[in-house]
Amino acid sequence: MDLDPNVIFNMTSAYLAEDIGRGDVTTQATVRPSLRGRGRFLAKQPLVVAGLEVAEAIFSNLEPGMELEAFVYDGERASQGQEFARIEGLAQVLLMGERVALNLLQRMSGIATLTRQYVDAIEGTRAHIVDTRKTAPGLRLFDKYAVSIGGGRNHRFGLDDGCLIKDNHIALAGGIREALQRARQSISHMLRVEIEVGNLDDLKEALGFGIDAVLLDNMTPERMAEAVAWVRAQPGGDGILLEASGNVNLSTVRAYAETGVDLISVGALTHSAPAADISFKIAPM
Amino acid sequence: MDLDPNVIFNMTSAYLAEDIGRGDVTTQATVRPSLRGRGRFLAKQPLVVAGLEVAEAIFSNLEPGMELEAFVYDGERASQGQEFARIEGLAQVLLMGERVALNLLQRMSGIATLTRQYVDAIEGTRAHIVDTRKTAPGLRLFDKYAVSIGGGRNHRFGLDDGCLIKDNHIALAGGIREALQRARQSISHMLRVEIEVGNLDDLKEALGFGIDAVLLDNMTPERMAEAVAWVRAQPGGDGILLEASGNVNLSTVRAYAETGVDLISVGALTHSAPAADISFKIAPM
Amino acid sequence: MDLDPNVIFNMTSAYLAEDIGRGDVTTQATVRPSLRGRGRFLAKQPLVVAGLEVAEAIFSNLEPGMELEAFVYDGERASQGQEFARIEGLAQVLLMGERVALNLLQRMSGIATLTRQYVDAIEGTRAHIVDTRKTAPGLRLFDKYAVSIGGGRNHRFGLDDGCLIKDNHIALAGGIREALQRARQSISHMLRVEIEVGNLDDLKEALGFGIDAVLLDNMTPERMAEAVAWVRAQPGGDGILLEASGNVNLSTVRAYAETGVDLISVGALTHSAPAADISFKIAPM
Amino acid sequence: MDLDPNVIFNMTSAYLAEDIGRGDVTTQATVRPSLRGRGRFLAKQPLVVAGLEVAEAIFSNLEPGMELEAFVYDGERASQGQEFARIEGLAQVLLMGERVALNLLQRMSGIATLTRQYVDAIEGTRAHIVDTRKTAPGLRLFDKYAVSIGGGRNHRFGLDDGCLIKDNHIALAGGIREALQRARQSISHMLRVEIEVGNLDDLKEALGFGIDAVLLDNMTPERMAEAVAWVRAQPGGDGILLEASGNVNLSTVRAYAETGVDLISVGALTHSAPAADISFKIAPM
Amino acid sequence: MDLDPNVIFNMTSAYLAEDIGRGDVTTQATVRPSLRGRGRFLAKQPLVVAGLEVAEAIFSNLEPGMELEAFVYDGERASQGQEFARIEGLAQVLLMGERVALNLLQRMSGIATLTRQYVDAIEGTRAHIVDTRKTAPGLRLFDKYAVSIGGGRNHRFGLDDGCLIKDNHIALAGGIREALQRARQSISHMLRVEIEVGNLDDLKEALGFGIDAVLLDNMTPERMAEAVAWVRAQPGGDGILLEASGNVNLSTVRAYAETGVDLISVGALTHSAPAADISFKIAPM
Amino acid sequence: MDLDPNVIFNMTSAYLAEDIGRGDVTTQATVRPSLRGRGRFLAKQPLVVAGLEVAEAIFSNLEPGMELEAFVYDGERASQGQEFARIEGLAQVLLMGERVALNLLQRMSGIATLTRQYVDAIEGTRAHIVDTRKTAPGLRLFDKYAVSIGGGRNHRFGLDDGCLIKDNHIALAGGIREALQRARQSISHMLRVEIEVGNLDDLKEALGFGIDAVLLDNMTPERMAEAVAWVRAQPGGDGILLEASGNVNLSTVRAYAETGVDLISVGALTHSAPAADISFKIAPM
Repeated sequence: MDLDPNVIFNMTSAYLAEDIGRGDVTTQATVRPSLRGRGRFLAKQPLVVAGLEVAEAIFSNLEPGMELEAFVYDGERASQGQEFARIEGLAQVLLMGERVALNLLQRMSGIATLTRQYVDAIEGTRAHIVDTRKTAPGLRLFDKYAVSIGGGRNHRFGLDDGCLIKDNHIALAGGIREALQRARQSISHMLRVEIEVGNLDDLKEALGFGIDAVLLDNMTPERMAEAVAWVRAQPGGDGILLEASGNVNLSTVRAYAETGVDLISVGALTHSAPAADISFKIAPM
Repeated sequence: MDLDPNVIFNMTSAYLAEDIGRGDVTTQATVRPSLRGRGRFLAKQPLVVAGLEVAEAIFSNLEPGMELEAFVYDGERASQGQEFARIEGLAQVLLMGERVALNLLQRMSGIATLTRQYVDAIEGTRAHIVDTRKTAPGLRLFDKYAVSIGGGRNHRFGLDDGCLIKDNHIALAGGIREALQRARQSISHMLRVEIEVGNLDDLKEALGFGIDAVLLDNMTPERMAEAVAWVRAQPGGDGILLEASGNVNLSTVRAYAETGVDLISVGALTHSAPAADISFKIAPM
Repeated sequence: MDLDPNVIFNMTSAYLAEDIGRGDVTTQATVRPSLRGRGRFLAKQPLVVAGLEVAEAIFSNLEPGMELEAFVYDGERASQGQEFARIEGLAQVLLMGERVALNLLQRMSGIATLTRQYVDAIEGTRAHIVDTRKTAPGLRLFDKYAVSIGGGRNHRFGLDDGCLIKDNHIALAGGIREALQRARQSISHMLRVEIEVGNLDDLKEALGFGIDAVLLDNMTPERMAEAVAWVRAQPGGDGILLEASGNVNLSTVRAYAETGVDLISVGALTHSAPAADISFKIAPM
Repeated sequence: MDLDPNVIFNMTSAYLAEDIGRGDVTTQATVRPSLRGRGRFLAKQPLVVAGLEVAEAIFSNLEPGMELEAFVYDGERASQGQEFARIEGLAQVLLMGERVALNLLQRMSGIATLTRQYVDAIEGTRAHIVDTRKTAPGLRLFDKYAVSIGGGRNHRFGLDDGCLIKDNHIALAGGIREALQRARQSISHMLRVEIEVGNLDDLKEALGFGIDAVLLDNMTPERMAEAVAWVRAQPGGDGILLEASGNVNLSTVRAYAETGVDLISVGALTHSAPAADISFKIAPM
Repeated sequence: MDLDPNVIFNMTSAYLAEDIGRGDVTTQATVRPSLRGRGRFLAKQPLVVAGLEVAEAIFSNLEPGMELEAFVYDGERASQGQEFARIEGLAQVLLMGERVALNLLQRMSGIATLTRQYVDAIEGTRAHIVDTRKTAPGLRLFDKYAVSIGGGRNHRFGLDDGCLIKDNHIALAGGIREALQRARQSISHMLRVEIEVGNLDDLKEALGFGIDAVLLDNMTPERMAEAVAWVRAQPGGDGILLEASGNVNLSTVRAYAETGVDLISVGALTHSAPAADISFKIAPM
Repeated sequence: MDLDPNVIFNMTSAYLAEDIGRGDVTTQATVRPSLRGRGRFLAKQPLVVAGLEVAEAIFSNLEPGMELEAFVYDGERASQGQEFARIEGLAQVLLMGERVALNLLQRMSGIATLTRQYVDAIEGTRAHIVDTRKTAPGLRLFDKYAVSIGGGRNHRFGLDDGCLIKDNHIALAGGIREALQRARQSISHMLRVEIEVGNLDDLKEALGFGIDAVLLDNMTPERMAEAVAWVRAQPGGDGILLEASGNVNLSTVRAYAETGVDLISVGALTHSAPAADISFKIAPM
């Protein structure tokens, strides 16, 4: 996915407003307005870089025309201690943008780094790592961009660009049959329909309605392998997308991948990725 | 700190817009508009609850008047498996608000739970745990509220409500002396002045300028204890606030607290707290 | 589709601001503030009513609690001269909301009325009438809601909830093959892929890539019937959605429907529907 | 009238957001980011061009600096098949802006084309064609600009820049006398006062209060001619503006113009003008 | 003029945000959340009250349903020491809204009080006191409302609801003739045309173009009386609105009123009115 | 303090929208679009200039790139009749921005001029003039900037960047003791605590709690001198900030300054400063 520059500009403006409030009293008090400086981004741990374009926007928002010089691009790895980017401009601007830029870079690189670990763990299998809607409120586009930079794929961006019938929908619809019959009538012809099932019986019932994809939730790898095998044995069964979900972590992800599923969704990519450790050192020019 | 209801309303509106987009196609397709349901929030791990007021606002934003019934209040502990809150309303509304409510509750409870662990670890010492500005962009008020719910204290909310002179400021000002002389002239009389130092020499230089607080950065507990002892021995030295920062984790935090500092700031509270595991089960009524 | 009450509220607020500006000088000058009145909506032509919920929101935006009493509901027909709804409240509010309410009701009912004519014209065939993105800028949700009220189905709501590869995409991608190969790699598994073709050769090429839907553009009914027959004869061909587009009007729509396509898209539903003639008569109470 | 560039920018940003949502998945999937293209606007029917400045803004909003090259300017006629404008830029940008640009150009050119037909139909008479407030909600400035481009004049832009006392005001005020006496006391000295009348008796009553303009509503041309003659025969009667309204279409407009009125208002210009047929063909460069 | 409740709500929300920022730290620290209080507004000087509705909105914005009880209504006089209004609610809310409410009440009452002095000074003459566009940026509606409450009339609200040709327009148009000829062609028939002149020759030239109103700028009362007499002696001259401007203060305003002008505009009403002295005393309940 | 260019841009955009509304009908009617002009700012009284950067932004908002040429900079004095700045650009833009630019320049220069009078009046004493939160709603940053330009210092910018316990807080907390004990527990360590007292007894009570600053309210200079002397005689008393408030005007301010206080706050600086008289004369180029 790509990030829209107008969206980046608007969101970073809001983030700067949140941090700066009525003015950076410390910077205005201590640093001469005309002084220029150079800021260097340093990886303090091995990481996958993500968010350079966003970081640049934070500074150029404050001083139009500022450009970040990258030595490691989004999606590439930086080693511990490596300077992966630098930016020059008014010293006051470097100080005012520092924290917001780091907060975003650290979050996005943290997500990309964790995603890359999952992707590497299942290398060679048919499966892809996908994200979820378990993102930080207001940060979905940046969170999902970071997943894609880390090698993952994006699931739905919201409730309007995909039909995913989950356990609560089934409970409120009155059953798998009722849910799928209703969905078939009203879902746009441009959207696929996916349904969550937790066992083989439900899976078999759902498949009878001609769905496009199945989310296999909270199964052991063994039971999931059985479910996958059953689906693939049906006519047209190889065209049905199978997604594993629940109990997935770095220790178990390969076992799930080897069941033959197409997709493995991991909420932790965006709700629990630790921030990547990055520092920003500024020197006068 | 308190959260302003108008801020909660505006922010949750934006979060819902982000998730719902042009409409929840799955829910509209599968669930009857007039059906009512009851949703139950369940702790799937031991946690400190935080964010109930925000979760309620998400639903009442969609259906005015919805009220969340809490069995465990913000700041209290829920045990694994415990139903800590429930809410009743239109089934479609419960489904449309589910993910956003969970994303916030899981993030805020995750932060509160981690904060509580740090606070418990230093019980009996003079020190308080404080947060930083290392929050998720756009979520600062909620992140810092969660820290306070977990028993931590709030540091600055932004660049405008406190003067904290960090290493980059000193580098660009031309030294500790220059930074502090300038700050003294222009900082509002309503704000305290704090400065970051990394060694005893800098600490001694800074104290000569009559500052209110010192951030002792990246010292070992041993060196920090020496620094604290030196300050306390000066005339008026007990009134100077000392803050420890850097290398602080759950294993080391007590050692830092026992140095005699007043404050220990922990960025990880807000940038790396894993989401608390919470589920939301909806049943028709 | 459903309209989100919060969206209705926000959009109608903006429309009122556009019309009222700094105040309704005529109403303030001529009508006593405390006077109450009753406004009656009259159909001045046979029409399909659409937009009552939006009309109500316009008035309740100005005077909280105002409710519109409907005698004919959205999607039902009103005959010439029929009073299909009424609303009571402050006379000044009825006057201030009148024009905006009528502008929306007339537009939405105009779209619903025209849509119903198309839907009726193809009754008994396999085809459904669908709308396009050729809506009035800013009014897409209301325009598409009106289509659904008139019995039509909704195509994509925007560029993000469906993959439709049109002639310009093919030209810039370098051909059907290039476009479809790239799309397959990156389009979310939740979205279907549809491609526009203008002749049988392109149709055959596209089908080789396993697409979900085809837009048959600007063909005569005869050529389209041949194309449909060819597709249906392929293995799995009955599952491929076929959409007719171009040269469709009330005279030709049935001929296209009888070719066996699944969908017929009609831009005129939203870009050229004449306003339905509706008046609003207010009397003091 | 002129369109304010800042207003154009803000409105087109909103329209793009409505259409693009979270991203143009088709274009991102099929077209290389660095590819440049040329888009040509072609008239598919004879039309009066309107909205070029707005169309340009849509693209320059996405890629700053893009400029549209016009061969036919706003207000001029394009013949069927004529290329009237072109624009070059990133191919992805051309695709992302295409639909919004066309939607506006087709609507605005449709209004201008219809207005021109009315203006031509009354050539040589004293009358001017004027628009109404019956515009698409949110699009009033663009709709009214298109009318002016087509040779029409603009009536009020909203409820705050003119005093027009209509039938509903009179009914609620308690009569023509009450309405006009109140209006005289409070209407700003910078605004004219116009009143709607439907017969000669009301016209005579209204004139006794020294009004500036009269809207003659729903009269036959014969009755309107009598009314006009009566007014012109009064002292100062030639200075009173007379506006015809109701039952005006392309067949009847000249008859109304020949009654000697000053203005003929036509709601259909903005609420029922069919979209002008325009296509946009993009080729790689 | 009336203030729109939605406008009041939105503007007071913004003012509260400006003052409260991230929270009222003093109030949260010192006052129990559940405590209720009563706040009394006291006039500390004789004044004309203006802005009660706005003051109420500030508090009800923070605690829905709060209502202000007025003993003196907008437009009435309060004597020194008089309690003119009170309000009850949460003590924290009273404290958080206090300053914003006072800032608005003091400004609006200050404007109304000064306006009333001007209005009283010209009692018995033909003239009315009118305001100008010399209002505090962002506060025009409130400033002009306060003028109307003080007994003044409102001139244009902005550049779009009246045509006033001033010296700079004439200089740039190339003269009075050029300005008036152009204006006549394009100004909406709903707006009057007023022109500024500084001497009798310009006045005579302007009148030849059939204008509606004249602003007589910077004349002595004697010269203005001559100008007025000349205009009134022309045919139809009594219907031309004459406005005095410049050099008007409380000492000179009656002399200008006695020249026979219809309007006297006073910029000082809104740009230089001193704040009325009002205090707000809160007691626990 | 510094003004943030993004804040200036956003606020001036809103002010222009308030004044221009749907368009400047007079300017569009009378002045050719391509004409360029030069506008000269003239001081019509001796004044301290403030707001040039804001004035420039108003014009560059309408025509990007316009730059104001200043002959007298913010904070410097202009004599009566002096041209202190000029700006060149499209004549229509000069006319459309004129009133908003003047409204801001006149307000800000009025505040700076009055502030300078207070500052000059206390020259040679220990005291500084400080502003209050008694600013025009929405204009706080500009009002406070003008104070700083006039030589004053800024007190709190809002309720979140300083703890000032006033009479109403004390009344609702239950006394000085209760208020200060609570404040001590919860106020951020980055903020100072100031308390308002009206007599020596309260002053003595407050000092017992180790506060940072005291606001001495509504005392005569004599009583205030006694209070100051008492504080200074306490151990550490010279480090406590003392602020005088109430009954301060240009006649009394020096007497208060000579009591030995550190700060004198003057609400009139921002709530009652008369506008500085400035004119803007435009000539064609």
